[in-house]
Amino acid sequence: MNNSSHTQIFNHGIFGFLKILLRGASQVMFQRNALTGLLFLVGIFWGAYSTNSPAVGWGALLGVMVSTSTGFILNLRPDEGNDGLWGFNGILVGCAMPTFLGESPAMWISLMLCAALTTWVREGLNNVMRSWKVNSFTFPFVICTWLFLLAAARMHSLDIDPTTPHLGEYTLTLNSLLRAWMRGIGQVFLIDSPATGLIFLIALAISNRWAAIWAAIGSGVALGVAILMGTSPYAAAHGLYSFSAVLTAIALATTFYRPSWRSALWALMGVVITLFSQAAMDSVLSHFGLATLTAPFCLTTWIFLLPLLKFDYHLPDHSEWHRQRAESQENKQ
Amino acid sequence: MNNSSHTQIFNHGIFGFLKILLRGASQVMFQRNALTGLLFLVGIFWGAYSTNSPAVGWGALLGVMVSTSTGFILNLRPDEGNDGLWGFNGILVGCAMPTFLGESPAMWISLMLCAALTTWVREGLNNVMRSWKVNSFTFPFVICTWLFLLAAARMHSLDIDPTTPHLGEYTLTLNSLLRAWMRGIGQVFLIDSPATGLIFLIALAISNRWAAIWAAIGSGVALGVAILMGTSPYAAAHGLYSFSAVLTAIALATTFYRPSWRSALWALMGVVITLFSQAAMDSVLSHFGLATLTAPFCLTTWIFLLPLLKFDYHLPDHSEWHRQRAESQENKQ
Amino acid sequence: MNNSSHTQIFNHGIFGFLKILLRGASQVMFQRNALTGLLFLVGIFWGAYSTNSPAVGWGALLGVMVSTSTGFILNLRPDEGNDGLWGFNGILVGCAMPTFLGESPAMWISLMLCAALTTWVREGLNNVMRSWKVNSFTFPFVICTWLFLLAAARMHSLDIDPTTPHLGEYTLTLNSLLRAWMRGIGQVFLIDSPATGLIFLIALAISNRWAAIWAAIGSGVALGVAILMGTSPYAAAHGLYSFSAVLTAIALATTFYRPSWRSALWALMGVVITLFSQAAMDSVLSHFGLATLTAPFCLTTWIFLLPLLKFDYHLPDHSEWHRQRAESQENKQ
Repeated sequence: MNNSSHTQIFNHGIFGFLKILLRGASQVMFQRNALTGLLFLVGIFWGAYSTNSPAVGWGALLGVMVSTSTGFILNLRPDEGNDGLWGFNGILVGCAMPTFLGESPAMWISLMLCAALTTWVREGLNNVMRSWKVNSFTFPFVICTWLFLLAAARMHSLDIDPTTPHLGEYTLTLNSLLRAWMRGIGQVFLIDSPATGLIFLIALAISNRWAAIWAAIGSGVALGVAILMGTSPYAAAHGLYSFSAVLTAIALATTFYRPSWRSALWALMGVVITLFSQAAMDSVLSHFGLATLTAPFCLTTWIFLLPLLKFDYHLPDHSEWHRQRAESQENKQ
Repeated sequence: MNNSSHTQIFNHGIFGFLKILLRGASQVMFQRNALTGLLFLVGIFWGAYSTNSPAVGWGALLGVMVSTSTGFILNLRPDEGNDGLWGFNGILVGCAMPTFLGESPAMWISLMLCAALTTWVREGLNNVMRSWKVNSFTFPFVICTWLFLLAAARMHSLDIDPTTPHLGEYTLTLNSLLRAWMRGIGQVFLIDSPATGLIFLIALAISNRWAAIWAAIGSGVALGVAILMGTSPYAAAHGLYSFSAVLTAIALATTFYRPSWRSALWALMGVVITLFSQAAMDSVLSHFGLATLTAPFCLTTWIFLLPLLKFDYHLPDHSEWHRQRAESQENKQ
Repeated sequence: MNNSSHTQIFNHGIFGFLKILLRGASQVMFQRNALTGLLFLVGIFWGAYSTNSPAVGWGALLGVMVSTSTGFILNLRPDEGNDGLWGFNGILVGCAMPTFLGESPAMWISLMLCAALTTWVREGLNNVMRSWKVNSFTFPFVICTWLFLLAAARMHSLDIDPTTPHLGEYTLTLNSLLRAWMRGIGQVFLIDSPATGLIFLIALAISNRWAAIWAAIGSGVALGVAILMGTSPYAAAHGLYSFSAVLTAIALATTFYRPSWRSALWALMGVVITLFSQAAMDSVLSHFGLATLTAPFCLTTWIFLLPLLKFDYHLPDHSEWHRQRAESQENKQ
C-alpha cells in the first residue's frame, strides 16, 4: 500500500496485467498458463451466454480484475501476483455471485467487495496453514461467498435467486451420462454446459496433459460412484457431484504428487471421499440455503495432504508448491 | 493453583483487586483504565435498571469477579491479570446470561461456571493463536456463552427467554437514528439504551480520544450501511448491526494499527465487512435460536489482522499487544 | 506404502497382529493392554447380541482390522501402530455405522472406507495439533462418521435407521439409576447395556485401577448433574449424558495429569463441562439428525488441556503421551 505499488501494476503494462489475469483464471485448476486461462474465459462466456446468464461471464472478468488489483494495492508478495495467485478466488466469486443473487447495483458492488476480500483472506489463511504445509486452495472463495450469500438473506438490497431443486423423476441415459461427464468439469466455474466442460478439458491439455486426463477421470469416477450410491440422478446429471472431484483429482494426481501408480491410487481414493464430502456438506448446507461451492474439494484435499505421506520420493512443502511449479513452468510459457 | 496464589490475590488488597476488576471492564473495548471501567459499570447499571433488568448489572459485576478470581486460582501469568485481561470475557458473560436466560438459582450458578470457564478457554485459545500473531479477543465469551445457551435448550432447570423479533412495520426517523447510533455502542455490553451508549463514549474518551472517535464512527457507518443494504429497520434501530462494528473500528484503527490515513481506510473496510458478517452469522445462528454476540467482530478482525499487512511502520506482534499497551499506558494511570 | 510395509505386518505374525488389534480396542479408553482390549470386545459382543444388533459386534472387529491395516499399508510410524493407536478410531466407526445405518452391502463397504479414512485423518490432525501439545483423541472417528452419516442422507444405497427419541413420560428409579450408571460406560462403544458397562469397568481395572475408578466417577457425576439440570430422564437413563464424561474423567484424572487432589478437582470440573457440551452439541446436531458421538469429550478435554496448566509437577507434552505411556507400561504387560 505504499507508493511503489502503483508503479508495480503499471510496470507490467496493459498486456502484462492481462497475462496475469489470464494466469489467475488458469490457477483455478492449478495451472499457470495464460492461454489456458484465456480458453477458460472463452468456456465461461460460451456457457454464460448459452444458458442465458451473461452476467456470470462479465462477473468472472470483473472478479479476477478486482481481486488481482487488490493484491497490488495491498502490496502483497509480487511473485505470487505474477503467478496469478490473487486471481483464482476472485474469478470464482465473479461466477458465483450472479449465479445465486439477482442482478442489481448492490449485487455488483457486493461482487467487487467479495472478490477483493478473497485476496487478503487468502493471505491470512495461508499464514495460518503454512506451518501445516498445506495451502488454502479455493477456500477463500468459499467462505467469502458464503458470507455474502448468507448476509443477502438479511438484506433486501440483495435478492436471492431461489435454486429450484428438481423434485420429479429423472432417468439417466447414455447421452445424459456423457453430457454429465463434461458438465462436471464445466461446473468447476459453476457453468452448467457440456460444451464448456469440453473447452476446459482442451484448455487444460494445452498446459498439462496429465491435468486434463485426471480432470476427465475425476469427473467420470465421481459420476459413477454417485450413481452407484444412489444420489439424486438430476444432481448427478448436472455435474453437481463431479466438479469438486475434478479439482481433487488434479491436485492429488498431478500437482502435489508426481504421476505414479501410488499417487494414482491415492487420487482415486480422494475422488471417492470427495463424493462423500459433497453429499455430506450438501446435507448440512441445504438447511441454510447454501451451495457447497468447492468446499468438498478443499476439505478432502487437506485430509489427503495433511498426513504428509511420502510415496517414493520426498514430498515437497505443499505451501510452496505454487512457486515451485511457477519456476518449473517458467520456460514452457 | 499452589499456595502462593492465594497470597497473590491478597497482595493486591481490596482496592488493588477492585482496580483490576475495573480494568477488566475497560478491556472489553481495548482499554486499560480503571476509571473507564468504572464508567462502563455505571453505564451498565443505568441501562440495566432503566430497562427493568437489574440482573444484567449484578450479573456483570459477578461475572468480572468470578473470571478474574479464576485466573488467580489457576495461577496464570500475573501480568495479564494485573492488566484486567481475565475480566473482560467474564463481564460479558455476566451481561449475556441474564439477558437470554430467566432468573433462577441454576442461571446464577451457570453464570459463574461460564464466567470461570472463559478464563482458561482464553488461555488455551491464545496458546493456539499466538503463532498466528493474533489474539482470541472476546471469542472465549462467545463460545462459552453459546455452549451454555445451547445446553439450556436441553435443560429444564434453565429457562430460555424467547427473544421476540419485531415482525411489524418500523420506520426510522432522525430521532430514532440518533438513538440507534448511541445504542450501537451500548449494545457492546448487550445494553439497549442510548444513554448507556453516551456514557460509554465519555468513558472511552477519558482513556483514549481516538478510541471514542472510532467507536462513534464504527457505530454510525455500520448503521448507515445496514440501512443502505436493506436490513431490518427494527434491528438497526436497536443497535444490533452496530455493536460488533464498534469493536472492529477501535481494534483496527487505534489498537493494532496506529491512527493514520491508511489504517483509517482499513478500519472502514473492516466496519463494512463486519456488517456483512453480522447479517451472515445472524442467518445461520437464528436456526439454533442463538444471538451472534460479538462473533462478527472477532471473525472480521482476525480476517483483517491475519494477513499481517504492514502499512507505514512495522506491525507489532498482535498476540503481545496487550502487554505492550499495558506498559505504554502504565504511566498514564 | 513401499515393499517393506508388507513385511512389517507379517513380522508381527498372526498373534502379534491380534495383540495389536486388541491394544487398539483398549486405546479407546486410553489403555494399552491386549487383555483389556479382549474384554472390551467381549463386552461389545455381549451387548450387541443381547440388544439384537450383532452387526455392531462384527462391525467393531472389522473396523479395528481395517484401520490398523491401513496404518501398515500407508507405512506410518511403526511404534504408534504397535501401541494400537491406528485401531481405536476404527473400532468406534465399526460400532457406529451399523448402529445408525441399516445393514446392506453398501453399509459394510462404507464402514471399511470410513474406518480406513480415520487412520490418515488422525495422522493429519495430529500433525496440526502437535504444536498445540494436544492430541486428536477420538475426533477422527467423530468427523469421519459424521461425514458418512450425513452423506447417507443423500444416498439411497445407505439407509438411515431413524433413532426414535422417546417422547412420553419416563421416571427414574433407584434400579434404573444404577443401570444408567453402568450404561454410561457401555455407551462409550455405543452399547446400551448395563452388563457391558460392568465388563468394561472390570477390563479397565485390569489395566489401571485409577482409570476404572474415574470411569465410574465420570459416569455417576455426569448422571447426577444431568438429572439436577433437568435433562431428558430417558436420555439420562440410557447413559447418553455419561459416556463422553467417562472419557473426559479418565483423560484428565489419570492420563494427562497424575492422580492428585488438584487433578481430581480439575477432572470433576471437566466432567461437569462435558455434560454442558453434550447438551449443547445435541441441540445443534439434532437439526441435522446427527448424534454427538464422542465430540463433547474431545472438545472439553481440549479446553482443559490447551491452557497447559501445571499443577504440582511439569506437564508432559500431551502429544507425546501415548508413547510415554507405552514405554512405562511395556513391562506390565
